[in-house]
Amino acid sequence: MNENNDLKVISLSELKKFLVHGRTTKNVNPLTLFWTGSSLELNVKGSELWIEIESDYDTYEPWISIMINGVQVSRQMLVKGRYWIPIFRNMDHQAVKNVKVIKEVQAMPSDESHCLQIYGIKLHGECLPVEERKIKLEFIGDSITSGEGIIGAIQEMDWISMWFGTKNHYAFLTADNLNADCRVISQSGWGTLSSWDNNPHGNIPFYYNEICGVLTGRKNQMLGAFEKNDFSTWQPDAIIVNLGTNDEGAFHQPAWKDDETGESFEQKMIDEKTYDVLDLKRFEDSVEAFIEKIRKNNPKAKIIWSYGMLGNVLLPNIGRAICNYKAKTRDKEVFVFALSNMTEETMGARNHPGALAHQKAAHELTIFLKQLLELK
Amino acid sequence: MNENNDLKVISLSELKKFLVHGRTTKNVNPLTLFWTGSSLELNVKGSELWIEIESDYDTYEPWISIMINGVQVSRQMLVKGRYWIPIFRNMDHQAVKNVKVIKEVQAMPSDESHCLQIYGIKLHGECLPVEERKIKLEFIGDSITSGEGIIGAIQEMDWISMWFGTKNHYAFLTADNLNADCRVISQSGWGTLSSWDNNPHGNIPFYYNEICGVLTGRKNQMLGAFEKNDFSTWQPDAIIVNLGTNDEGAFHQPAWKDDETGESFEQKMIDEKTYDVLDLKRFEDSVEAFIEKIRKNNPKAKIIWSYGMLGNVLLPNIGRAICNYKAKTRDKEVFVFALSNMTEETMGARNHPGALAHQKAAHELTIFLKQLLELK
Amino acid sequence: MNENNDLKVISLSELKKFLVHGRTTKNVNPLTLFWTGSSLELNVKGSELWIEIESDYDTYEPWISIMINGVQVSRQMLVKGRYWIPIFRNMDHQAVKNVKVIKEVQAMPSDESHCLQIYGIKLHGECLPVEERKIKLEFIGDSITSGEGIIGAIQEMDWISMWFGTKNHYAFLTADNLNADCRVISQSGWGTLSSWDNNPHGNIPFYYNEICGVLTGRKNQMLGAFEKNDFSTWQPDAIIVNLGTNDEGAFHQPAWKDDETGESFEQKMIDEKTYDVLDLKRFEDSVEAFIEKIRKNNPKAKIIWSYGMLGNVLLPNIGRAICNYKAKTRDKEVFVFALSNMTEETMGARNHPGALAHQKAAHELTIFLKQLLELK
Amino acid sequence: MNENNDLKVISLSELKKFLVHGRTTKNVNPLTLFWTGSSLELNVKGSELWIEIESDYDTYEPWISIMINGVQVSRQMLVKGRYWIPIFRNMDHQAVKNVKVIKEVQAMPSDESHCLQIYGIKLHGECLPVEERKIKLEFIGDSITSGEGIIGAIQEMDWISMWFGTKNHYAFLTADNLNADCRVISQSGWGTLSSWDNNPHGNIPFYYNEICGVLTGRKNQMLGAFEKNDFSTWQPDAIIVNLGTNDEGAFHQPAWKDDETGESFEQKMIDEKTYDVLDLKRFEDSVEAFIEKIRKNNPKAKIIWSYGMLGNVLLPNIGRAICNYKAKTRDKEVFVFALSNMTEETMGARNHPGALAHQKAAHELTIFLKQLLELK
Repeated sequence: MNENNDLKVISLSELKKFLVHGRTTKNVNPLTLFWTGSSLELNVKGSELWIEIESDYDTYEPWISIMINGVQVSRQMLVKGRYWIPIFRNMDHQAVKNVKVIKEVQAMPSDESHCLQIYGIKLHGECLPVEERKIKLEFIGDSITSGEGIIGAIQEMDWISMWFGTKNHYAFLTADNLNADCRVISQSGWGTLSSWDNNPHGNIPFYYNEICGVLTGRKNQMLGAFEKNDFSTWQPDAIIVNLGTNDEGAFHQPAWKDDETGESFEQKMIDEKTYDVLDLKRFEDSVEAFIEKIRKNNPKAKIIWSYGMLGNVLLPNIGRAICNYKAKTRDKEVFVFALSNMTEETMGARNHPGALAHQKAAHELTIFLKQLLELK
Repeated sequence: MNENNDLKVISLSELKKFLVHGRTTKNVNPLTLFWTGSSLELNVKGSELWIEIESDYDTYEPWISIMINGVQVSRQMLVKGRYWIPIFRNMDHQAVKNVKVIKEVQAMPSDESHCLQIYGIKLHGECLPVEERKIKLEFIGDSITSGEGIIGAIQEMDWISMWFGTKNHYAFLTADNLNADCRVISQSGWGTLSSWDNNPHGNIPFYYNEICGVLTGRKNQMLGAFEKNDFSTWQPDAIIVNLGTNDEGAFHQPAWKDDETGESFEQKMIDEKTYDVLDLKRFEDSVEAFIEKIRKNNPKAKIIWSYGMLGNVLLPNIGRAICNYKAKTRDKEVFVFALSNMTEETMGARNHPGALAHQKAAHELTIFLKQLLELK
Repeated sequence: MNENNDLKVISLSELKKFLVHGRTTKNVNPLTLFWTGSSLELNVKGSELWIEIESDYDTYEPWISIMINGVQVSRQMLVKGRYWIPIFRNMDHQAVKNVKVIKEVQAMPSDESHCLQIYGIKLHGECLPVEERKIKLEFIGDSITSGEGIIGAIQEMDWISMWFGTKNHYAFLTADNLNADCRVISQSGWGTLSSWDNNPHGNIPFYYNEICGVLTGRKNQMLGAFEKNDFSTWQPDAIIVNLGTNDEGAFHQPAWKDDETGESFEQKMIDEKTYDVLDLKRFEDSVEAFIEKIRKNNPKAKIIWSYGMLGNVLLPNIGRAICNYKAKTRDKEVFVFALSNMTEETMGARNHPGALAHQKAAHELTIFLKQLLELK
Repeated sequence: MNENNDLKVISLSELKKFLVHGRTTKNVNPLTLFWTGSSLELNVKGSELWIEIESDYDTYEPWISIMINGVQVSRQMLVKGRYWIPIFRNMDHQAVKNVKVIKEVQAMPSDESHCLQIYGIKLHGECLPVEERKIKLEFIGDSITSGEGIIGAIQEMDWISMWFGTKNHYAFLTADNLNADCRVISQSGWGTLSSWDNNPHGNIPFYYNEICGVLTGRKNQMLGAFEKNDFSTWQPDAIIVNLGTNDEGAFHQPAWKDDETGESFEQKMIDEKTYDVLDLKRFEDSVEAFIEKIRKNNPKAKIIWSYGMLGNVLLPNIGRAICNYKAKTRDKEVFVFALSNMTEETMGARNHPGALAHQKAAHELTIFLKQLLELK
C-alpha cells in the first residue's frame, strides 16, 4: 500500500495505551487472542493506522473483524504469516477514533496450530488511553456463545471458521447496551457435564480456572494457555452461563467410549420421552458444582444461568440445582433466566441461532441485567 | 332502532346452533357467562342480527365485546336490565358471518350481583352450525390472565371493569394462532398457595373442580356456579398455568389475619433478599399438588406451567416442584415455560402487561405449543 | 343502570366547559356532529359520567367511540332515539379524566335522516376547561380520509357504517403525534374534479366553503349544514389534501349521465395505458383551482397535497398543477407529498387501507409536518 | 496460506463460466470493475477458492466485499498490488456455492489511479455456469445510489472509501427482492443539470452513453472507460433514476466559476423560500432531455424517476417534466415514484441514508416494481 513516510511503528509493549479484551496472558510481545470476541482496543488520534498480526493454523484459519467507532467496517480471513493489515487511511487527523480488532473465531482445540497474535501498530498520529468500562460481563457457553452460525446462509452446514462471528452476537450486543466490557468463555458442542456426544471431557467447568485450558498442544502451552487465570485482575459484575443445551443433547446420543482407556460415559433416556432420573441428578449436581466454582473465583458477581435459544427441556433441572445451591449456601446472588427459543424466522447457518435470534436474546438479557445491576 | 319486520326472535334453547366458550352450566335459558372471555359464538347467514342480554351488578358492571369474522367491532359497558343489543345491519344476506359476543370482565367474587346472561337472538336470516375447533386450550391464571390493564392509559389506577379486556390477550391470541377453542380460569390477585396479601383462601387450586367456585352468594349458587365441573365434556389438549406472581408478591406483604377465626397466614423473607426456605417449600408443594389435581381431571392434556411477564423469581422453585412431581409420577407431559417480562415499553394500565406484552407472550407460547402439540 | 343520587344533569349550553372538534354550527342545544371524527371533548374531575345523545337514520346508523385519557375504551352502534350512554363509573373522584365522544362515521349524503347529536351530560363531579391545542390540522379527502375499511376483516365488502372508523386513522394519528387539533372533510368516492364514477357533482371543492354542504335534505338544511363555514374561528396551521384517487379511477369508468338533465361527464383513456391529455389538463386545473380556494379561506396555512396509499398515477399531474399555481401566485407555502402505497399486508376491509397502512402514512406525514411546521 | 496442492489456477479468459455485473468493457484479461456494486459472480462446485486481484490508487483505495450464497462474509480494504485473496476453504466438495466479489466503492474521477481488476481464480473443484437473471434493473443516481454513508458511525464525516458500501443498499436489496440482475451508474454530488456546487459538468446525463465516462485520465482511457457503451448486450426491464437531490442543493450554493475559461453557472433562490422560475425550468428541461436520452438507448425499459430520501422539494418539477415529456412523446412507460425521506433514526454516516433508510426505500420500490413489471 501507499508509502506514508510519516507512519511510526510501535510495538504493543512500547505502546501501553491500549485495552485487551478476553482472557489472555500478561505477555503483549506479541499479544495472543484466544477466545471468541477477544480483541485489542485503541483510541487513535490520527489519520492512518495499520496493525501487525501473525496468523497460523492447520485446518481452521483465524478471522478478524475491525470496528471503527462501534461499527464493523471489515471482516476477513487471515492467511498464514506475519504481516500488516490496514485499518484506516486519510481520516481527519484531529478526530479520535475508537478501534477494535476482534477475533471472530472460538478457541480451536482440534487445531493445535490455530493462533492469532498482534505485534504492534504503525500510525500517523498518536494513541490516547482507553478506559475500562465500569461494568464487566463474563459469558460462558457453547456454540451459541461461540457465535456459530450467526453468519452464513441458512443452508450452510460446513463446520468451518467462516460461519463463526461476533457481529449481532447476544453477548456483545448486551455488553454494548449496558456499556460494558465483555469476556467470552465458550466451546461449540460442550456442556456442563459432558459434550453433545457424551464425552465427559467436553465440559467447561473443568477448565474454568485456566486462561484457555480447553486448548491442546505444546504451542498453546508455551503461549500460557494452560496457566491459572488471575481472577483478581478482572472481576465481572455479572456472569452469564448459557450451558445445558449440549447436556440435553447427550441424552439422545449413544454412549461415548474411549478406546484406549476403555472409559465410557452416557446420559440415558428410559423411553422416548423419559430422561433417566439419576442421569438428570448427575447433570443437576454438575450445575451446582459449577456455580460453586464460579462463586469461589468471583465473590461479588451476580451469577445468572441463562438457558434457552435451542430448547429448554432442562430448565426445571437447572431450577432445582439452583434452589438446592441457594438453600445450602444462602447465596442470594444466583438467578435463572430463560432465553426465548430460536424460531424458523430467526435461524442462522448450521441450524444455529442467527442474527435475529441473538438480537432477541440480547434484548431480553439487557432488560434483565439493567434491573439486576440497577443501571440507569 | 329501525323496525325490521322480517326479524325472527329465537331463544337459545330453541336455536341450538351455537357454541358456548368458557366453563358454565348446561342451562341456556338463559345462558350465563361467568369467566373472562366466555362467549357465545354464532354463524349467521343473514342481513341483520340482535342479541338479548341481561346485565346486573352492584359495583362492577359487565362489559362485552362483539367480534365479526374475527375482528372486534364493538365494546361496551352494559347498563342494568334485560334488553336487545344490535350486532349488525344491512349486510349481504347470503354471506355467512362468524359472530362472537364475549364477556370482557373476570368473574367478580366481591360483587355478588355481577351477572351477564344471554336469552336469545333476533335476526333476518338463519343460523348455521358452529363446529368445535380441533384443538382445545385451558388457561389458568391471575390478573394477567384476567386481562387486567390490557386496555387503558398507562396512568390508570382504578380497579374497575373498564380496564379488563380480551383483545390482544395472550390466551386468546395464542388460541387464534393455533385455531383453538379456549377457556380461561382466572382471578386477579390470586395464586397457587395464597393471594398477593397472604390470604390462603385466594388460591385457584381449591376451586378448580367447580364450574365457577371463586364466586360467592346465593344468586351464583342458584345459577350453578358452585356445581362440580363436568370435565368429561371438554378435555383440553393443553393446560397453561400462569400462577406464581402473586405467590411471590405475598412474601413482601404482612401476614393475613382473619379477625373472626383468629386464623393467620404468612410467607416470609428472612432478610431483604432471602426467602424463607420452608415457605418456599410450602409454595413448591402447592405447585406439585395443583399439577396432580389438574392431571386427575385431564388425563391426556399437556400441562405447561408458564410463568413470567411480571417477574420470574420463583422460576427455580417451580422447576424444582415439577422435577419432583415428574420423578414421583413418571408423568412425561408436564413442562415449564418462561414468559418474557413486561418492559416499560410494553406496560399497560395499572402497572400490568399491556397489549404489546401480551402479544409477545402469545408469540412465544404459540411457537412452543406448535412444537409440543405437533401442529402443522 | 344503578341510581347514583349524586349525579347532576347539565346541558351543553349550561356547561360551556368543553371543546367541539369538527366543522359544525354554533348551536350546542343540541350539538350536531357532522363529519368523520367530529367529537365532544371534556376534562372531567369526578367519579361518574354519562352523556345524552340522539341518534337517527334510515339506512346508515351512526357509531361512536369513547376515549378515556387517549385510549379507545368503547365503540358502539347507536340505536335510534334520545338516551343516556354511560361513559365511566367508580373512578377516583379527584383525578381529571380527558374524555372524547367521537363520531366514527362520515357525513352521509345518501341518508337524509342520518344524524348524531349530543344534548348534555350527567356526572358526579365537575368539568374543567379544555384548551385548544396550539397546532391545528385540517384533512380533506375521500374514502381513505373517511376511514373506510380501517376496521373489519379483509373479506368484508358491505358498504355499511360498521366498517368506518377513526382508530388508527392516519389523520388522527398524525394529529396525536403533533399534539394537534384536527378536522376532517371527506366523502367516500369523491374527488377533486369528479367522483370515481365520473359524476361531476361528487367533488369536494364545490362544497368546501359550507359547514357540511355535501349533505342533502331539509333536515340537514335546518341543522345549518349548508351555511357558510366561518373560517375566522378556526385557522389551521396545515391543510392536508388527500384527493386524486377517485379522479384517477374515473378514467376507467363509463361516462356519467344525468337522465333528467341529459348532462354527461367523462374522463377518458385513449388506450389501455394512455390518459387523454385534455382530461388530464382538466384534472390539473381543478387541483389548481382548489388550492386557490383553500388559500383564500386559509391565508396562513401550509397546504400539502398528500397523495398515494391507493395508487399514485396522477402524482406528476398534481406536481404540474402545483408548479403552475406557484409560478402564477408566488405562493411559497404549497407542497406535494407522496404517501406510500397500501400493500397486501396492510390492506383492511373493502380493499381499503387498514390500520397498518394508516399507521405508515401517519408516520410519514408526522416527520414531514414536524419539519415543515418547525415543531420541537 | 496453506499450500493445497490440488488447486488449479485459471484465468478469467480461460474460465468463461462466470457472470460480470456492472458496465465494463469486453476485456476480461484482466476484468476491470468500474462502478459501485460491479462484481464477478461464480458458481463453484468445490472445496476451496481464491481470487487474483490487482488494486491501485493514489488517494481512494478500492474495497471489496465477498458474498457466499447471498451472505456477505467478508469486506476489506485492498492494499496496492496484484495478489491472491482467499474466498473459502474446507467446504463440502460436492456442494455448489454461489460467490460474488463486489466493488464496494464508486468510480472515482478525482483519483486517476483508483482501479480494481480481477485476473483469475484458483480452486479445488470446478466452476459451473452462471445464468443471467430474467429481470434486469439499472439504477442511476448520486451519493445515495453510490451507497455513501450506508456504513459507518453517525459521527463519521470523512469523505473516504471506507464509508461507501453495497450491503443494505436500496438498489441491490430491490434487485434481490425481485431476483434481478442490477447495474448502478452513480456519482456522489452529481445531478441531472449540475452538481451540488453548481458545476454544470457534474451531471450524469452527459456521460450516460459511455462505459464509465465520469472517470478521467489516460489510464482509464486505455482501460476503455470512455468507449461507447454497447446497450444492445444488456437491456434492462426497468431504469430507476434517483437524481434531483443535488440539483436542489445547488440552489443554496454560490455560483460555480471556472477560473480558466471564465465560465460560470448558478441555480438561484429569489428569496429564502422562492426558487427562480427560469432556473426551475432549466432543471425540468434537463430531466426531460435525460429521459429522452435514456429512452433512445433502452427502447423497452420502464423508466421510473424515483426521488426522495434526502428531501423532495423538486418533486412537483420532476412531475411537470414527466407530464410534458409524456404529452409530447406519447411514451406510456415513464413514471415518477417518491421515496420516503430519511429520518434521524434511519440516518447513516456523513448525514446520508443509513441501512434502515435504504431498507425502507427498497421495500417501497420492490412493491412498486413488482406491480409495474407484473412479477409473480
